[in-house]
Amino acid sequence: MNDPSHTIVLKDPLSLDGGGELTRVELAYETYGELNEHRTNAILLCHALTGDQHVASPHPITGKPGWWERTVGPGKPIDTDRFHVICANVIGSCMGSTGPASEALDGKPYAMRFPVITIRDMVRAHVGLLDALGIGTLHAVVGGSMGGMQALSLAANWPERADRVLVIASTSRHSAQNIAFHELGRQAVMADPRWNQGDYYGGEAPDSGLSVARMAAHITYLSEEALTRKFGRNLQDRDAKTFGFDADFQVESYLRYQGSGFTQRFDANSYLYITRAMDYFDLAEEHGGRLANAFSGTQARFCLVSFDSDWLYPTSESRHVVHALNAAGAPVSFVELSAPHGHDSFLLDVPALDRVIGGFLG
Amino acid sequence: MNDPSHTIVLKDPLSLDGGGELTRVELAYETYGELNEHRTNAILLCHALTGDQHVASPHPITGKPGWWERTVGPGKPIDTDRFHVICANVIGSCMGSTGPASEALDGKPYAMRFPVITIRDMVRAHVGLLDALGIGTLHAVVGGSMGGMQALSLAANWPERADRVLVIASTSRHSAQNIAFHELGRQAVMADPRWNQGDYYGGEAPDSGLSVARMAAHITYLSEEALTRKFGRNLQDRDAKTFGFDADFQVESYLRYQGSGFTQRFDANSYLYITRAMDYFDLAEEHGGRLANAFSGTQARFCLVSFDSDWLYPTSESRHVVHALNAAGAPVSFVELSAPHGHDSFLLDVPALDRVIGGFLG
Repeated sequence: MNDPSHTIVLKDPLSLDGGGELTRVELAYETYGELNEHRTNAILLCHALTGDQHVASPHPITGKPGWWERTVGPGKPIDTDRFHVICANVIGSCMGSTGPASEALDGKPYAMRFPVITIRDMVRAHVGLLDALGIGTLHAVVGGSMGGMQALSLAANWPERADRVLVIASTSRHSAQNIAFHELGRQAVMADPRWNQGDYYGGEAPDSGLSVARMAAHITYLSEEALTRKFGRNLQDRDAKTFGFDADFQVESYLRYQGSGFTQRFDANSYLYITRAMDYFDLAEEHGGRLANAFSGTQARFCLVSFDSDWLYPTSESRHVVHALNAAGAPVSFVELSAPHGHDSFLLDVPALDRVIGGFLG
Repeated sequence: MNDPSHTIVLKDPLSLDGGGELTRVELAYETYGELNEHRTNAILLCHALTGDQHVASPHPITGKPGWWERTVGPGKPIDTDRFHVICANVIGSCMGSTGPASEALDGKPYAMRFPVITIRDMVRAHVGLLDALGIGTLHAVVGGSMGGMQALSLAANWPERADRVLVIASTSRHSAQNIAFHELGRQAVMADPRWNQGDYYGGEAPDSGLSVARMAAHITYLSEEALTRKFGRNLQDRDAKTFGFDADFQVESYLRYQGSGFTQRFDANSYLYITRAMDYFDLAEEHGGRLANAFSGTQARFCLVSFDSDWLYPTSESRHVVHALNAAGAPVSFVELSAPHGHDSFLLDVPALDRVIGGFLG
C-alpha cells in the first residue's frame, strides 16, 4: 500500500465564522483508493473530537490501528477498491493540521491566540482541500459524532459538494447537557496549573487536567448498560476491597487508563478549541432558526443512523434532523440500530452499521 | 424555636467495616420537635453526600435555608408537632462530625490517615447516637440518595431499630456508572496540586479540583430534560457568542457557580471519603450476595420512591430493592413519581412526594 499520508498548505487564508481569517492553513490528510478519471468517486470522511486522519493506518504515536480500519479498506463497507477516501485532520486539532500548537506568524505556538473556530470553519478548510485536489462533487460525505456535524454542515453550506450525506450518531446542535460535559472537561484542563493560560509548549503539559477531561467524556461515550456489562462492580486484580483510594474497581482502572493514555496523543489546547466548536454548533441557528432552511438548497440524498444506547446524541436528535430534511423535501433514510455500547457504537463491531453504510454508498 | 444544634462524643470507639476502630467519635446533629414520654416518636433523617444536619435551620456557612425546610417542620410532611426528628452529620463529613479534617489523637488533622469508611459505618455511628439518646426503636428512618442507602443499611443490619423505612431516589448498590462518576470526581480533586496528598489543612485547599468534581456530580443530579428546560442553549447576559472561553452559555455559568460555591462549604478530603463509601455500598454483597437476605430479619414496613427522570439512581434500582423485599416477605409500597428535575427531585418542590411521605409516616 502506498503511504496514505499527505499534507497541504491551503492557497488562500481561511475566513472564520468568528471574524478574521487564519493564514497559512496546513492540513494533514490521508487518502485511500484511487481517484477515478472523472473525479466522481471521492468520499470525504470526517473524524470525531479526538479522532484524526489515521482512518486505516496505524496511529503514529500509539501504534494502534486506524480508528475505522474495520470499515474502510478493500472490500469493506467503504470499499477502497471502488472509492477514493479522503480524511483530513480538522483545523484546531493536533495531528498535523493547523491548531493551537502550530507556529503563528511570529514563530511561536499560537496557544490561546489561536482563534475560536466553528464546525463550519473546519468544513471550510475541508472544502479548500477538495478545491486543491480538484474534486468538485463528492460521491459522499460521511461522519460519526463530530464527523456527522461536519457532514451536515457541508450539506447545508456547500450543498453542491456532496451527492450523499451519511450522518452517524450525531446531532444538529449541542444540548445543554452536551455543553455541560464539555465545560466540565475544559474547566478540568484550565484548573491544572500546568495549563498556564495555554502557554505550556516546551514545558510540562496539563496532563492531569486533560486526563480528567477525558475520563468525563469517556463516561458519556459508553452506555450505563455497557459499563455494567463490561465492568459491573468487579474488582481489579484483587479479591477484596482495599479500603483505600487505589483503583479497586475495574471501571476505575479503566477510566484512569483511558485518561492517561489520551494525554500522550492529544494536545490540551486542541481539546479546548474543538469542544468549543462543538458547543457552538447549532445548524438551525446558522440558518434563521429553522433547521429545514439549512437544507433548502440540497440535492443530496441523506442517511441518518442512531444507536438506541447512545445517550450523548440520542435517537431523538437524529429524528429531529430527519424531520427537518422531510420538511425540506430532501430524500432521507433513517435507522436506529440496536447496539449495547452507547455512543461509541459507531466505532465498534456493529454488523448492521456495516450493511447500512455499504448499502447507502451504493 | 430552641436551637436545634447539638454535639455528642460517643462513649465507645466505633468498630469499622475496614477493620480497626475510630476513637473519640464526635457527632454533630440537630433535633426538631419533642421526644414523647415513651420515646416512640423519633424519626432519623439521613442526609445525602454533600448534605448535613442542617435540615431545617440555616446553613452556618452559606446562610441558606436547611436542605429539607420544605419537608420538615410544624404541619409539614414530616411534622415536628408530632415527631422528634434527628439528623446527624455522617462520620467522614465536615460539618462537625468526625472526619478527615478532625484532629487525630496526635492533635493534627487526620487528613488521609482517616480510615476508609462505609455506609454501614456511618449508620453504626447513628445507632451509637440513638443509644446515647435512649431511643430504642425509631418510628421511621428516612433518607434520600445516600440517605436512602443509610436507611436500607439500618433496616438490614439493625432491623429492630426502625418500624418504618422510607427510601427516596436511592439504590442498594453503586453501579459501574455511579462509580465512574465518583472516580472522576476523586481524580479531579487529587489532580489539584494543592490537594498535596490530603495535607492541605492550614494552607490553600484544592478548590479547583473540588469544583470540577462538583460540576461532574451536578450534571448527574439533573435530567437532560431539566437542563434543556432550564438553560437550553441560552446565552448568559450577552446577545451573541463571544468566540472565546468565557461562560457564554447559561449552563456553563451555572456549573461554574455550583462548583465554586461548593468549595466554600465542603472539605475535599471528605468528598473523597464519602464518595468512596458510596462506591463500596452493595447491600447484597454484605449479605451473602443475595439482597433478600439483607431483609430476612426485618419487621419494618418499607416505602420506596423513585423519580422517572432520575438517571443517577433510576427506577430500576428501586424496583430491584422492592423485589428483594417481596422475596423477604416484608411489607413494601413503591411509587415512581413523575418529576422533571432528575435525581435532585427529592430536594425540590414535588407535591406528590409530600403526600407519599406524610401518608407513609402515618
